[in-house]
Amino acid sequence: MAETAKGGFITLEGGEGAGKSTQIQRLAAALADSGLSVITTREPGGSPGAEAIRSLLVEGAVDRWDAITELLLHYAARRDHLTQTILPALDSGRWVICDRFADSTMAYQGYGLALGRAVVEHAHALAVGDTRPDLTVILDVPLDVGLARAQARDGDDTNRYERMDRDFHQRIRDGFLDIAKREPERCVVIDATADADAVHAEITGAMNRRLGLALTGPAS
Amino acid sequence: MAETAKGGFITLEGGEGAGKSTQIQRLAAALADSGLSVITTREPGGSPGAEAIRSLLVEGAVDRWDAITELLLHYAARRDHLTQTILPALDSGRWVICDRFADSTMAYQGYGLALGRAVVEHAHALAVGDTRPDLTVILDVPLDVGLARAQARDGDDTNRYERMDRDFHQRIRDGFLDIAKREPERCVVIDATADADAVHAEITGAMNRRLGLALTGPAS
Repeated sequence: MAETAKGGFITLEGGEGAGKSTQIQRLAAALADSGLSVITTREPGGSPGAEAIRSLLVEGAVDRWDAITELLLHYAARRDHLTQTILPALDSGRWVICDRFADSTMAYQGYGLALGRAVVEHAHALAVGDTRPDLTVILDVPLDVGLARAQARDGDDTNRYERMDRDFHQRIRDGFLDIAKREPERCVVIDATADADAVHAEITGAMNRRLGLALTGPAS
Repeated sequence: MAETAKGGFITLEGGEGAGKSTQIQRLAAALADSGLSVITTREPGGSPGAEAIRSLLVEGAVDRWDAITELLLHYAARRDHLTQTILPALDSGRWVICDRFADSTMAYQGYGLALGRAVVEHAHALAVGDTRPDLTVILDVPLDVGLARAQARDGDDTNRYERMDRDFHQRIRDGFLDIAKREPERCVVIDATADADAVHAEITGAMNRRLGLALTGPAS
C-alpha cells in the first residue's frame, strides 16, 4: 500500500437480514489479501461517543423518539464517527468499510418514518458536508427473506428497528432502491438472496470495475 | 386560570452563576400566587430522553465532542423536551418556565465555540421550527461575578462547560447580549449583580409590562 495515499471509503447498506456483517468481513479480508490496510466499522456507532449515542437509538420502546429527534441523534453519532474514526483512517491511507452510513438514515428515517428526503438532506449537509463513500453496496433481499434471516439470527433479542412493522420495512427496501437509482455512479445494488460466495463475488467484481482494484473472488 | 387558554413560555438565560435557578423558583411562585398553573423545567434535559442525552453533554472531557456533534446533541435533546414536555404543557394551558433554551445553544455553540449564527439557525429550523418563547429573560453578570458564584456553588464539582476557558465564557456573555439586541421584542436583559429580591422585582416587572400580567414583586 502507498503510505501517502488516501484510502477508499466503502459502505454496505440494506435492510434487516441482508447479510451485511458476513459480507463486510469477507470484503475486508479480500482487501487485506491484496495488500491494502483496512478497518471495518459500523453505524450507529464506530467511535466511543457514537456508541454511547447508539445505545439511546437501538434500546427501548419503538416510539421512544419522535422521528426528527431520532434523525438528529443519528447525525450526531455519524458526525462523531466521521471525525473520530473514518476521516483519520482515510487520511492515514487506510480503507474503511462501514456497516451502514447515511443511506440508512435516508432509508429508515426519510422513507421508513416518512420524514422525506429534504429534511434528511438538511441534517446531512450540517453534519457530513461533502464527504461521501467511494462505493456503496446495497444488499437487496425480499422482505420475507430478510426478516426471516434476522429472526433466525437474533431470536427474541430483537432491536428497536427490527420490532417496527412490515410496512415500515417495505418502505426501507423501496427507499434503498430509490437511492441507488438516484446515484448510480456511487451505488451498486446486489441481489443478496444468493449464497454468501456468490454475493461476495458480485461485491469484489463491483469494487474492481468501479475502483480499479484487482481483488480476487471467494477465498479458496 | 382559563382552562382552554394556551399557557405562556418563559425562558431564563445567562452564563454560569447568573442566578437562574433561584429566579426561576421565585418566578414560578409568583405565577402560581396569581392563580396560573406553572411547571419549571431545564435544558439540556427536561424529559426522560433529553435527560439521557444531557448526561452525554455535561459529563466527560471538555473536548469530548466536536462542536457540530455537540450542536446536534443539544438539538436532539431540545426536540425531545419540546415534544414530550413543553408543548403538551402549553397546550393544556400551563405556563412553562425553562432554565435555558435555544439561546443557550446560540451563545455557547454559536458564539462560544464559534460555529456562527447560520449553522445554529440551520439546526434550529430543523428541530424547533417556529416555536419561540413569549419572553426570554437574560440574566447578565460580569464574568468574574458569575464564575465566582458558580465556583462557590459547585466547589470542585464543575461540569464540562464550567471547565472551559475564560475567553469562551466572555464570548458567551457577549453572545447573549447580541441576541438580546437582535430580538428586543422577545428578550429582556436584567442586571443580575443586584440582590435576589431586586432581580426578582425586575423580572416580574418585565413579565407584567410585556405579557399584561399583574404579578406582585418579592414575597413579603
